[in-house]
Amino acid sequence: MQRPICSVFIATSVDGCIARPDGRIDFLDGVQLEGEDYGFAAFYASVDALVMGRGTWDVVNAFPEWPYEGKRVVVLTDRPAEPRRGETIASGGVVSLLERLHAEGVRRVYVDGGVVIRQFLAAGVVDDLVLSVIPVILGDGVRLFGAGVPELSLTLVESRSWPTGLVQLRYQRTWRT
Amino acid sequence: MQRPICSVFIATSVDGCIARPDGRIDFLDGVQLEGEDYGFAAFYASVDALVMGRGTWDVVNAFPEWPYEGKRVVVLTDRPAEPRRGETIASGGVVSLLERLHAEGVRRVYVDGGVVIRQFLAAGVVDDLVLSVIPVILGDGVRLFGAGVPELSLTLVESRSWPTGLVQLRYQRTWRT
Repeated sequence: MQRPICSVFIATSVDGCIARPDGRIDFLDGVQLEGEDYGFAAFYASVDALVMGRGTWDVVNAFPEWPYEGKRVVVLTDRPAEPRRGETIASGGVVSLLERLHAEGVRRVYVDGGVVIRQFLAAGVVDDLVLSVIPVILGDGVRLFGAGVPELSLTLVESRSWPTGLVQLRYQRTWRT
Repeated sequence: MQRPICSVFIATSVDGCIARPDGRIDFLDGVQLEGEDYGFAAFYASVDALVMGRGTWDVVNAFPEWPYEGKRVVVLTDRPAEPRRGETIASGGVVSLLERLHAEGVRRVYVDGGVVIRQFLAAGVVDDLVLSVIPVILGDGVRLFGAGVPELSLTLVESRSWPTGLVQLRYQRTWRT
């Protein structure tokens, strides 16, 4: 299969939560630093398209401004949805979506949202993963990982810490020769 | 309350597992390195006592040799247990155990095993946490954290990576002034 590279760039608490049970992400406030984006802009510039789930899309739709202007956005959902800012609504399997995107010239995809990231992990198509670990244990929350995801051996590419206590772990899937 | 410092030193997969569903920890094999203990001996030398749960104790009892010779070991369990190598069997609350240990001169405790670590987190008595992150997503497994643990703000003390891909995150609880 020819498909785009699939990349994850996400922040979690030490206990692996990407949000509180009600969806709030206020625990990220503690690492906000003027002029520091922890590599996000460079990562974002490197992707041709975003694939997100319904949950992330609903959150972003409530923002006053669409943050993805000029970037191809695909919303992966099996429920009816009305695109409002040029998004593509897609349903069905991850692999067929990736084949379509590749045929359209997309070479690297930013996979966002817990459900969609787990779908991509389950399909075995996540190529790299940037995890920004926030120095807090939340206890309760929406967890990034969980049962049902297949085992995936990773190679550490880089690890870096900031004075805010954020540690960023950059992994690639391990290619066995 | 006067109590010993309570420290956690544990390895997890990227998705927060400390073992496979059947208890196996073979995923640690990939980071074994001749002469490299990732700081464990220095940490172990700094504690006066270990507190472990029934699960960890059962595993260790099956070893041909008792690995804790010369170190005070407390097994926290509500089920009957027969100490075999000088362990203390304790039941009941974490706080009263820590008060007893402090009265006996114990100043730093190594808290081991998922259940007991969560009990100590729930009691709000974990002071520092060394997490060694192994470069693999396991998918299914015994998770270190979970719901029911209260929120805990952490301060990053150090982060370090090794050529094996292991990243060690050293945190202390955040003391607010």
